[in-house]
Amino acid sequence: MTAAKRPRLEKRKQATRLRLMESAYALMATKGFPDVSIQEITSAADVGFGTFYTYFASKESIYDALVEEVLESSGSVVDAATRHLTDPAERLSAGIQYTLLQARSDVLWGKFLSTSLMTPASAARGLGKFFLRDVLEGLATKRFEVEDVPMSVVAIAGTLDAMLRMKSDELATVLGNLGLQQADDAAKGHGELDLTKRSAALVLRILGVPAKESLQLACKPLPPIAGFARFFDREPGQTPSDASPSPTLAPSGNKA
Amino acid sequence: MTAAKRPRLEKRKQATRLRLMESAYALMATKGFPDVSIQEITSAADVGFGTFYTYFASKESIYDALVEEVLESSGSVVDAATRHLTDPAERLSAGIQYTLLQARSDVLWGKFLSTSLMTPASAARGLGKFFLRDVLEGLATKRFEVEDVPMSVVAIAGTLDAMLRMKSDELATVLGNLGLQQADDAAKGHGELDLTKRSAALVLRILGVPAKESLQLACKPLPPIAGFARFFDREPGQTPSDASPSPTLAPSGNKA
Repeated sequence: MTAAKRPRLEKRKQATRLRLMESAYALMATKGFPDVSIQEITSAADVGFGTFYTYFASKESIYDALVEEVLESSGSVVDAATRHLTDPAERLSAGIQYTLLQARSDVLWGKFLSTSLMTPASAARGLGKFFLRDVLEGLATKRFEVEDVPMSVVAIAGTLDAMLRMKSDELATVLGNLGLQQADDAAKGHGELDLTKRSAALVLRILGVPAKESLQLACKPLPPIAGFARFFDREPGQTPSDASPSPTLAPSGNKA
Repeated sequence: MTAAKRPRLEKRKQATRLRLMESAYALMATKGFPDVSIQEITSAADVGFGTFYTYFASKESIYDALVEEVLESSGSVVDAATRHLTDPAERLSAGIQYTLLQARSDVLWGKFLSTSLMTPASAARGLGKFFLRDVLEGLATKRFEVEDVPMSVVAIAGTLDAMLRMKSDELATVLGNLGLQQADDAAKGHGELDLTKRSAALVLRILGVPAKESLQLACKPLPPIAGFARFFDREPGQTPSDASPSPTLAPSGNKA
C-alpha cells in the first residue's frame, strides 16, 4: 500500500464504523438492545454481515461504544456546566433538567437513554455515573436522607424514564384521563412550573429534601451550558467533540 | 342456516376472535402498541387481513378489548381480595405487591402492563383505575400528603415500571455496577425484605407516609387471593373468569 492510499483507506474505515454505529443506535433506541441482531445492524448500514467483526467483537461491544459516545459524552457536557455547583442537590436538579431538555430536543437520544436506563450494562455509566455521584455525595454529607437507597435510585430512574417515554403532549391527556387535570392545574398554579422543573423537584423529594426547598431548588436558573452534543448528523470522520453545539437549546429555551 | 349450524359457527367465530386477541397481546406486549400493525396481527393469527374488521373496528378497538380482558380483569381479582382493607395505604400496598407478583409469574402479562402504563389510552383503566382510587381516597382523608399529585402519580408509575422491566436477577447486577450492593445488603438487613415489599414501601413514601410506617405497612401479611387470572392459555370460548386460578401463586409464595 502506498502512503497516499493509507489516509483514504483510514477515512473509509472510519466511515463504515460510523455507519454501523449510527444503524445500531437507531435500532437499539427503537427496539432496545436485546431485540436487535447483528444481521439487522449490518443490513441497515448496508454492509456485509462479516464486516461487522472488522470493527466490533460483538453486539455488546458496539453497544459499549454507543454508551460511551452517546451517553457518556452528553453526561460530560452537562457535568462541565454544573460542576461548579457546591450543593449536590442543586447539581442533581440541574443535571436532571438538562437531561430531560436534551431528550426533548433529540428524540432518538431520549429513546436510546430510555432503553438503556437501569440495564446492567449501562446503569453505572453514561449519565447514571454523574447522577449517582451526586446522590452518594448528598447522602454522605446528610444533604439527602433516604432509608432504602437502592430502591430510591430505582424510583428516580423510573420517574425519569416515565418522563422520557411520555410524549410531552401526552401528559395532559393522561392526566385528563386520570381525572388529575385539576390537580395539575393547581400544581402549576404554584409558580407556573414546567414539567422539567417539577420532575427535578420530585426527585429531590424522593431523596428526602423537604417539599418547599425541593421546589425552590428546582426553580433556580440553570447554569449556562455550551450546548448539547448531536450524534451521527455530522460528517464521517468528524469526532463527537467537533460537532457544533445544537442551536436549538440554550438555558433560556428551558420551557416544558 | 340451520339451527344446528349456528352454535358451531359461533364457536368458530369466537375462536378466531380469541386468536386475533392472543396475537395482538403478544405483539403489543413485546413491541408496544404504536409499533404493531394490523397486518402483523392477522399474519400472526393466520387469518386474512380483511377478517380483522369482522371482529374489530380498528387497532385501537382490539387494544381496548385487551386492556379490558387482560388488565381490568386482573385488577378486579386483586380488588376483590383487598377491598375489605379500610386503610387506603394498606390497600394500595397490597395491590402493588400483587401486581408485581403477577408480573413475575406471567412474563407476557408484565410486559403488556409495562407497555400500557401511563399511555393515554390505558392510564385510567385496568389496574391504574384501582391504584388511583386508593391514592385519591388517601389524599382526601389526609392519609397521604403530597404537594404535586400528578407528578407523584408519574413517579409511582415509573417506579412500578422500572420494577416490571427489570428482570429479577438483573437488579443485583445493576446495584453491583452502581456500587450499591452494600447499601442494598444494609437495606435488606432491616428485616430481610424482598423487593416487592420494598417497592410498596417506597410508593407509600412518595405519597408522604413516614418511612417507618411505610415499611411496617408493606410488611403486613397479604390478604388471601383466589389466584391470578391467566390469559389465552385456555380453551377457545372459555371466559377469563372460567380460567382456573394459577397454581404458582399463593400469598405464601410471596418471595422476591
